[in-house]
Amino acid sequence: MLQNGIAKSVLTRLPLYLEYLIDLKETEGYSGYISATKIAMDLELGEVQVRKDLSFACGNGKPKLGYDLVALIEKIKDYLGCRQRKNAIIIGVGKLGSALLGYKGFERYGIHIIAGFDLKDKIEENESLVKEFTEKNVLEVFENNLIDIGIICVPKKFAQEVCDILVKMKIKAIWNFAPTRLKVPKNVLVQNENLAYSLSVVSSIINNKNK
Amino acid sequence: MLQNGIAKSVLTRLPLYLEYLIDLKETEGYSGYISATKIAMDLELGEVQVRKDLSFACGNGKPKLGYDLVALIEKIKDYLGCRQRKNAIIIGVGKLGSALLGYKGFERYGIHIIAGFDLKDKIEENESLVKEFTEKNVLEVFENNLIDIGIICVPKKFAQEVCDILVKMKIKAIWNFAPTRLKVPKNVLVQNENLAYSLSVVSSIINNKNK
Repeated sequence: MLQNGIAKSVLTRLPLYLEYLIDLKETEGYSGYISATKIAMDLELGEVQVRKDLSFACGNGKPKLGYDLVALIEKIKDYLGCRQRKNAIIIGVGKLGSALLGYKGFERYGIHIIAGFDLKDKIEENESLVKEFTEKNVLEVFENNLIDIGIICVPKKFAQEVCDILVKMKIKAIWNFAPTRLKVPKNVLVQNENLAYSLSVVSSIINNKNK
Repeated sequence: MLQNGIAKSVLTRLPLYLEYLIDLKETEGYSGYISATKIAMDLELGEVQVRKDLSFACGNGKPKLGYDLVALIEKIKDYLGCRQRKNAIIIGVGKLGSALLGYKGFERYGIHIIAGFDLKDKIEENESLVKEFTEKNVLEVFENNLIDIGIICVPKKFAQEVCDILVKMKIKAIWNFAPTRLKVPKNVLVQNENLAYSLSVVSSIINNKNK
């Protein structure tokens, strides 16, 4: 689970730090230095973990002062590649796909969803970004743009077929919402997402509390 | 990060095992015993980790055989409390809330979203489960049902206000999609969700690969 020496779990936490630090700066008007102790307390993480996580992105803080807030934000943004524009497309623009297509939160990370595809009769009239899902239409978008990420939001039974087309177009990464394991060549990254997982964690914690 | 002796990270992986095992049984017709080695290979996890994770839910497998597939599925379901019905409500039924409201994947975990709330002029005509968000309407649903989980899908600026109302109704857990840290009493569990985080992980891995 290591990517160039950094654990995926650290990569998963870095956006959490980033959102927190930006919020602190922009909403709460915080400035100057921030200590690992404060970050750990606010985010309910261990202090050792915070120091370790942040060391990947920006080295160590200054003794007794901590991290320069503005510099820390910039370094995490650099580390996460927020300034390198990445284009994504969505296949399957039902309710979830449509929610993702309209979600503004991705742009902070340099990710722009530039097109969606669905079956002709599923496309809503006011969805200007959505085209009919045909290999020709997909190819056209790939020929005119550098597409890094394919987001799969189709039902399980169509997911592998859609995936194969994306692989043929030399996609680098797939963010998969279909509850199925996709078969891809080794150089293609698949990040599986299942909304039920998070909710089931909440549910099982409640459950164990009730015991 | 420990809940009754089990790490949250383990709880997060158990649904992954569960979906995989059910898929194996129902789609691929697999039966009998399954080894930790096969599970680890298919899910791309370490074998030691698989054994450790599963030991929480169902003890150890049989030497040289592994785990009885059907029994393993049942034990994980028990552990995750899939058979204890839990009711949830959604506040904020925009595109994302609407997608969650229609999502069938939660029922496998015993979670039923029984109502949604939104501002009167935001409610679509065909949404029979969605009511106007007023304290009176929310109270009515709480009086007539045992509600365990509140799902917050409103914009950031309304999130704390909505959260306070849910806390007043004695909610046990909140699944929060608003990109803000909610203030709750200690006995209320908050699970924050940010779709941008997962996508930013994909993005940063691509980024580090390109370096």
